[in-house]
Amino acid sequence: MTTDGPIFDDSFRARLADLIAWRRDVRAFRDTPVPAGTFERLVSLACLAPSVGLSQPWRFVRVADPARRAAVRANFERCNAAALAAQADERARIYATLKLAGFDQAPEQFAVFTDRSTEQGHGLGRHTMPEMADYSTVAAVFTVWLAARAEGLGLGWVSILDPAEVTAALDVPADWRFVGYFCLGYPEHEDDVPALERAAWERRREFQRFIFDR
Amino acid sequence: MTTDGPIFDDSFRARLADLIAWRRDVRAFRDTPVPAGTFERLVSLACLAPSVGLSQPWRFVRVADPARRAAVRANFERCNAAALAAQADERARIYATLKLAGFDQAPEQFAVFTDRSTEQGHGLGRHTMPEMADYSTVAAVFTVWLAARAEGLGLGWVSILDPAEVTAALDVPADWRFVGYFCLGYPEHEDDVPALERAAWERRREFQRFIFDR
Repeated sequence: MTTDGPIFDDSFRARLADLIAWRRDVRAFRDTPVPAGTFERLVSLACLAPSVGLSQPWRFVRVADPARRAAVRANFERCNAAALAAQADERARIYATLKLAGFDQAPEQFAVFTDRSTEQGHGLGRHTMPEMADYSTVAAVFTVWLAARAEGLGLGWVSILDPAEVTAALDVPADWRFVGYFCLGYPEHEDDVPALERAAWERRREFQRFIFDR
Repeated sequence: MTTDGPIFDDSFRARLADLIAWRRDVRAFRDTPVPAGTFERLVSLACLAPSVGLSQPWRFVRVADPARRAAVRANFERCNAAALAAQADERARIYATLKLAGFDQAPEQFAVFTDRSTEQGHGLGRHTMPEMADYSTVAAVFTVWLAARAEGLGLGWVSILDPAEVTAALDVPADWRFVGYFCLGYPEHEDDVPALERAAWERRREFQRFIFDR
């Protein structure tokens, strides 16, 4: 058993806090290509994320085919129109101004799924909470997000999609659970304020209100 | 719009990769207390995590009351016995040797829930995928995990629990969704190999098998 791991100092912690604060959900990308090997490097780090029972249930599906990209984008347009229609009038005006996906510019695009049926992990930790597999996948996704930002890249998570239709459009096993579709590239802007806050859609609240004592 | 965010260099990226590689799911803690203010600092960083529609649906419930801690622990013992009984013979022998929670030693313990009914975010991004709220909570949890490790602390995620019973034992709103119960403290050991791999339960696989091209 190794007993002396790396020591992280105040300087590293301050930079880590910067990374967390400056990570954005990016919707506007420059057309600069993402260097070859980047996606693989980010996924290799993601595969060190915690997973229930060491099951590694994440599945990264890189989408390069223009027809498949177009199918996903068309699905987004339909779902987004329905979401706009469901907003009350005064909010619909703001909603209509929001740029909620970067399909048109993002040089790298991928979908992420969870394979809940994986034998890896032998079911450990999943009897009472099968959703733990999905949570493991989210930890992997967030690892990509932070590692990408540390390389100056931005990630955008698109959830305004019909999971079954995206699963079919990408021709992956029907029992994989769709977690999200992601756009990756160099962001047009850097920012430490969420885009939805700048657009007056919602504001971030102080952490104190999210802590409860028992 | 701010256009010049922080630049992260090779040295930071190497340390970030170390952080990701040395983060463990910790089950054995030293009895050293966690300094006052630590939990709040970690949660304050977690509240910068991405959340669907800027909804911040995470709810951190710090559990200090011994009776409530005992109730959660008893629930774990019952669920773990059931999980052991469900394992095939040859795997049950290994399962019985695993230490799967650090209730007995962890100085700080908290549960995390998702409030899917929050008005914050006005439902943005959740029409087709209501589970996005839970995923936001997981991103917050993983932020705590990484920030804790950067302070030399370890986090353990316990999922071998009955969500409804834990929700009741902690007296939180019944419609909050239980995401996990967490033990936080200084780890007995540092390691860059998952405990389940050392215990010969499962081994981590190479990243290449998790990438698919479309």
